[in-house]
Amino acid sequence: MSTPFELDVQKVVAAIKSCLPPDRDFVGLHEPYFTGNEWNYVKECLDSGWVSSIGQYVEKFEEMLAEFTGVKRAVAVVNGTAALHVCLKLAGVEQGDEVLIPALTFIATANAVVYCGAIPHFVDSEEKTLGMDPCKLGHYLSDIAEIRGGSCFNRITGRRMKAVVPMHTFGHPVDLEPLLDVCQRFHLELVEDAAESLGSFYKGRHTGNWGRMSALSFNGNKVITTGGGGAILTNDESLGKLAKHLTTTAKVPHKWEFYHDQIGYNYRLPNLNAALGCAQLEQLPAFLEKKRALALRYREVFQNISGVRWFEEPGFARSNYWLNALLLDKDHVHERDVLLEISNVQGIMTRPAWTLMHKLPMFKDCPAMDLASAESLETRLINIPSSVFLGGTYGQT
Amino acid sequence: MSTPFELDVQKVVAAIKSCLPPDRDFVGLHEPYFTGNEWNYVKECLDSGWVSSIGQYVEKFEEMLAEFTGVKRAVAVVNGTAALHVCLKLAGVEQGDEVLIPALTFIATANAVVYCGAIPHFVDSEEKTLGMDPCKLGHYLSDIAEIRGGSCFNRITGRRMKAVVPMHTFGHPVDLEPLLDVCQRFHLELVEDAAESLGSFYKGRHTGNWGRMSALSFNGNKVITTGGGGAILTNDESLGKLAKHLTTTAKVPHKWEFYHDQIGYNYRLPNLNAALGCAQLEQLPAFLEKKRALALRYREVFQNISGVRWFEEPGFARSNYWLNALLLDKDHVHERDVLLEISNVQGIMTRPAWTLMHKLPMFKDCPAMDLASAESLETRLINIPSSVFLGGTYGQT
Repeated sequence: MSTPFELDVQKVVAAIKSCLPPDRDFVGLHEPYFTGNEWNYVKECLDSGWVSSIGQYVEKFEEMLAEFTGVKRAVAVVNGTAALHVCLKLAGVEQGDEVLIPALTFIATANAVVYCGAIPHFVDSEEKTLGMDPCKLGHYLSDIAEIRGGSCFNRITGRRMKAVVPMHTFGHPVDLEPLLDVCQRFHLELVEDAAESLGSFYKGRHTGNWGRMSALSFNGNKVITTGGGGAILTNDESLGKLAKHLTTTAKVPHKWEFYHDQIGYNYRLPNLNAALGCAQLEQLPAFLEKKRALALRYREVFQNISGVRWFEEPGFARSNYWLNALLLDKDHVHERDVLLEISNVQGIMTRPAWTLMHKLPMFKDCPAMDLASAESLETRLINIPSSVFLGGTYGQT
Repeated sequence: MSTPFELDVQKVVAAIKSCLPPDRDFVGLHEPYFTGNEWNYVKECLDSGWVSSIGQYVEKFEEMLAEFTGVKRAVAVVNGTAALHVCLKLAGVEQGDEVLIPALTFIATANAVVYCGAIPHFVDSEEKTLGMDPCKLGHYLSDIAEIRGGSCFNRITGRRMKAVVPMHTFGHPVDLEPLLDVCQRFHLELVEDAAESLGSFYKGRHTGNWGRMSALSFNGNKVITTGGGGAILTNDESLGKLAKHLTTTAKVPHKWEFYHDQIGYNYRLPNLNAALGCAQLEQLPAFLEKKRALALRYREVFQNISGVRWFEEPGFARSNYWLNALLLDKDHVHERDVLLEISNVQGIMTRPAWTLMHKLPMFKDCPAMDLASAESLETRLINIPSSVFLGGTYGQT
């Protein structure tokens, strides 16, 4: 993988710059883009007074999401973390269970496991997708797992392993078919953390449409945004109904009684935010085109630069290219921080991968497989500007 | 308390109607009111792209809240439930603790306790405030509590009792001074559930400014709204700082590294919602005047109606009159549902109190004191329309 050539950091920064508009002092990693009906819909909420949990936009947003992703039911919630929390609950994750998640992910994946009283168990990533390595996971589980009474147990810790939560890193789908195979073989539920992959498809089917439950995010830095927001996706209508119930305080509908039949959550997405989401979702196909145009421009300029490569979607995927990523060759990892420093000083926002989960103090004692590939990726990854508006001709739209 | 007179339900409905605008087919319980800078501020968010977690309105909203309530630090979060959850965490509530909360409250109070892995322990209310009865609580704790090593234990369950969470029902402050006294005597932390009491003062000092930590709500039905939102209040600056840290995923600030030093929460209020909050908060003093004007009108019309009384703020309080309440005399409780039915059919939204917490299936085995007063209030309470806009001359503003 390594190359004998020297990495020219200034050349890398110049290459990024050549894909960006020349007239901007600062280019963020992923800025929101409001060019559709955002104003109209938001103003309608204010004019009608329907800004909160009741209002037509929540339902409309859920219908549009279900249609775009092809799932039977989408439930809008307050953010992606909340979505994942409820997905895990509904997949049957209980206090004391282990949940298999990538070490290379955003903190939300691990936190959602902890909110269920469960323990994250860290899995390695593969360089092909930047996500969970199904083959390595299969071999690992063959070593440490045993099936008893239809459930999967970790022979070392004695705990039940209930679910696998791949995360589609920067929008690139993990290799879902072999992963589903592993899940079936070991009686594990597949819950997709699709927070970054709205608009990404695996073998023609949308990410988040493969697992039992899936979580989306519409944070300000995502492909589309609701300010803050998320959604639960599922093809199981009864689970979808339960997701709606649990995320709206588990209140039993009644003309005036306040009766709740179980512990629920106040995870409703306000109508105001859903209105923004509807306007954004209308533009999603156009956004994805622009993001692809930018990605192809990056691909071109990085073809002739040594020591670093632009990360291309896996062959089985059509990715949303949420965040474009560069991968340093292994013998150039020491130059990562120089590159980050120089680009950020020049007003081009870049950032490294997240600190791997097993290195954080609260997760350092959690079970983990060998994480060689994730460890390598962590030292080599750099995200570069990827906003929708950059997909025009040098950002002119 | 009971009266020999018959309750004339039609007369009660007519009395409510006489305080409402004559030209409306439907009058809700508490509708949002947007007559200030709401659109300007929200539009600014859309125009600038700052709709999400970063943006000037979150900070401005926090400063305005701290100033209005007189606390040292306010931290804006995604809703009141989230605020209460973090308040309890920071007050030191741990897995297996008991937390004393009223049986007469909204579900959020009890759920927030459960999210900490703790057990709600239900306390009776007093008719004077509709909130926690400090005198009865003191006697009860004298019976069942013992202090060991500076902590309070329940002698019956063996569990530590860590905190007391009064809720200021419909905006009416509980009797805080004797309650603080009980807390000090039994080494319990006071955490105020001030979700309903923004703008309510106890002996001249704002509710939420008495406990170690307090929670506000800006749900769509509250005095002011952010669509969905809440805030944590505290006078302890280090706790305030920690509240901000915990509610923003416990990420350690760094120019590009993603490092989190503990289990945190994605409880940030989006800038878009904070913008709405700033515009609403600017109008709060005017809103409170309108709400008082409506309350006084209700007081007047109900003075001469038998079998029911309008609930007036306790003598030590200046209440926001979030939701006006009627209290049926004890021998008219069987007419509660008739009154609810008739008023709702006529487009005047009314509703009873929440089902008491200890009657819900998930809390039925939780510890509880004698709840005679809460049980009585539950059968007799009816909330009536209380929106800000109703405070004009028959709703004309």
